Amino acid sequence: MKIVVVIMAGGKGERFWPRSRKNMPKQFLSLTTDGKTMIQHTVKRICPLVDMEDVFIVTNKDYENLVLEQLPNVQKNNIILEPIARNTAPCIGLVATYIKHKYKNEETVMIVLPSDHLIKYNEMFIDTMNNAIKIASEDENMVTIGITPSYPEIGYGYINFGYNEEDKKYSGAYKVKRFVEKPNLEKAKEYLVSGKYLWNSGMFVWKTSTILKSFKEYIPEMYQGFVKIEQAIETQSEDEVLEREFSKFKSESIDYGIMEKYSDIYTVPGNFGWDDVGSWLALERTYKTDENGNVIDGNVISINVKNSIIQANNKLVATVGIENIVVVDTEDAILICAKDKVQDVKKVIENLKLCNRNQYL
Amino acid sequence: MKIVVVIMAGGKGERFWPRSRKNMPKQFLSLTTDGKTMIQHTVKRICPLVDMEDVFIVTNKDYENLVLEQLPNVQKNNIILEPIARNTAPCIGLVATYIKHKYKNEETVMIVLPSDHLIKYNEMFIDTMNNAIKIASEDENMVTIGITPSYPEIGYGYINFGYNEEDKKYSGAYKVKRFVEKPNLEKAKEYLVSGKYLWNSGMFVWKTSTILKSFKEYIPEMYQGFVKIEQAIETQSEDEVLEREFSKFKSESIDYGIMEKYSDIYTVPGNFGWDDVGSWLALERTYKTDENGNVIDGNVISINVKNSIIQANNKLVATVGIENIVVVDTEDAILICAKDKVQDVKKVIENLKLCNRNQYL
Repeated sequence: MKIVVVIMAGGKGERFWPRSRKNMPKQFLSLTTDGKTMIQHTVKRICPLVDMEDVFIVTNKDYENLVLEQLPNVQKNNIILEPIARNTAPCIGLVATYIKHKYKNEETVMIVLPSDHLIKYNEMFIDTMNNAIKIASEDENMVTIGITPSYPEIGYGYINFGYNEEDKKYSGAYKVKRFVEKPNLEKAKEYLVSGKYLWNSGMFVWKTSTILKSFKEYIPEMYQGFVKIEQAIETQSEDEVLEREFSKFKSESIDYGIMEKYSDIYTVPGNFGWDDVGSWLALERTYKTDENGNVIDGNVISINVKNSIIQANNKLVATVGIENIVVVDTEDAILICAKDKVQDVKKVIENLKLCNRNQYL
Repeated sequence: MKIVVVIMAGGKGERFWPRSRKNMPKQFLSLTTDGKTMIQHTVKRICPLVDMEDVFIVTNKDYENLVLEQLPNVQKNNIILEPIARNTAPCIGLVATYIKHKYKNEETVMIVLPSDHLIKYNEMFIDTMNNAIKIASEDENMVTIGITPSYPEIGYGYINFGYNEEDKKYSGAYKVKRFVEKPNLEKAKEYLVSGKYLWNSGMFVWKTSTILKSFKEYIPEMYQGFVKIEQAIETQSEDEVLEREFSKFKSESIDYGIMEKYSDIYTVPGNFGWDDVGSWLALERTYKTDENGNVIDGNVISINVKNSIIQANNKLVATVGIENIVVVDTEDAILICAKDKVQDVKKVIENLKLCNRNQYL
């Protein structure tokens, strides 16, 4: 059975401001020392699984040039452009439609991956994926990759799975009982202790026919849109129909729209050093820290600085006596943020929008 | 009697890095909202006392152009250039020598002022100076302006004065008992409680003849140098003699070299809102703070920022959740410093020197 990979690259990644911008979201940034961007890492990671002609990128039309620049080996026809941001359900259905069209009668297994996560153990990742592919190839199973939680994170959704005999039909996988939205800290601690919850990583594997059939069942009006789009592919009206139909779709996540309603879902636990790189704090997990607990990159002098993350650009960044601070310098803006307030970087962006200071967005 | 003002402007002011640089020390910076530099404020402040032709600037030869640019009304002949930095005793003796030469047989009273302090109540300052001039004009008195301490500062020298009848010969002045070097905190608290100590502000008033006579008595080898320099003034060998003689002088403060040995010294307490602007923290005393205790200037966004000092330049400085931090941005360097570690800015400069990164010095 043909394996195809879909990389979702439409996110805005505002939490990496000032390096991430409206025209340069997180997935197109390099946050590692090797100079490769997040999406380049993602593509490189799946190379052992598929040929490049079977790699699809789905992104917002605003980012087409970034994809072309950063991923010159991806086929231009495999770059699917959303006319507007509409969350993961329309995004995944759209690319499934294009895949169905491209491979005609050949059945395909779709691996759906976010473009902006980091994975430390790539070979373990491939093994996990191969197991997921095997399970997804059988019957009409959907597979979601769950990450074994290492602490009670309140920023992720959780997957509740079963341990009974009937839940363990497939080796290395468990039947999913339910999906849980971001919990409070108390709940997150319960989940961690119970041993029956995994983090929802947003990585999915299923047959293209399975996911499209489930759209038909659970979001039929969206499915009708996909049918119209498919009929227009490679015709003169393709752009027009895509724009019209896609704009009509409601904004909905694949979790809420499909997964929570579907019964035959299995989770394959992944232990491959996953990190969603959700904020600047991720750099502490990604880079080595120095003897004072700092992650320092670039033109920096630090005197008695502890547990801080400092990303310099061209300018000399001299830091003295600070602790638990994130500093990120760019050409036209610098962020200086308490580590326990990195989520409030969004408030800077709100402020900039409010004041129409678009040059910084 | 002729009154002349000497403004000492040879300091390096490293504590205001990155705005102060080797070629731009503190006295030539504007640290107030009106755009005037410290030395411009100092000159403006003494205008009610003297004509511009009686204002002398003594500075390092490296800063000649800065003085010419910032003080176009000062007579070029009144700008005395030290070939090398040698602390206050050689500096004051040198300018006294030039004053003696300029005014020939006319007796002059010298007011010696630092160029980089701020004073809030200029009229009270003038009143204080007029009293000091009166006392210095009599006999061979020296007068030093003492500042009534408001807290136990350990960074200043102190003046111990007497309260007895014989100490109060002059109205509004007290006889100086002794000068005390920077005390520890315990001592500083004692001084504060005793009511018999004032901060040594580095502002002095005396007749030119009095100070030169005391050089002859207490530092005779330096006095001999001044005599040779005076003989060379307005001759072809002036620069050469000045350079040769001045370089031979030992580095010594006027306090240590003369004042501590001299007997007829009176202190006039000044209560004119003096601030030596010794570090970035002075901005809190100079500027109004906002409702969160911040002093914010320039292109800044602050979200939940408290008790911080933020000086932006062209770049947007976005601050989130930080407290008690000093941020100073310039074209090529930015300082981010804990408020209780501002004295360690010197360590940044040491580091830069060590690494030969002269472009930032």
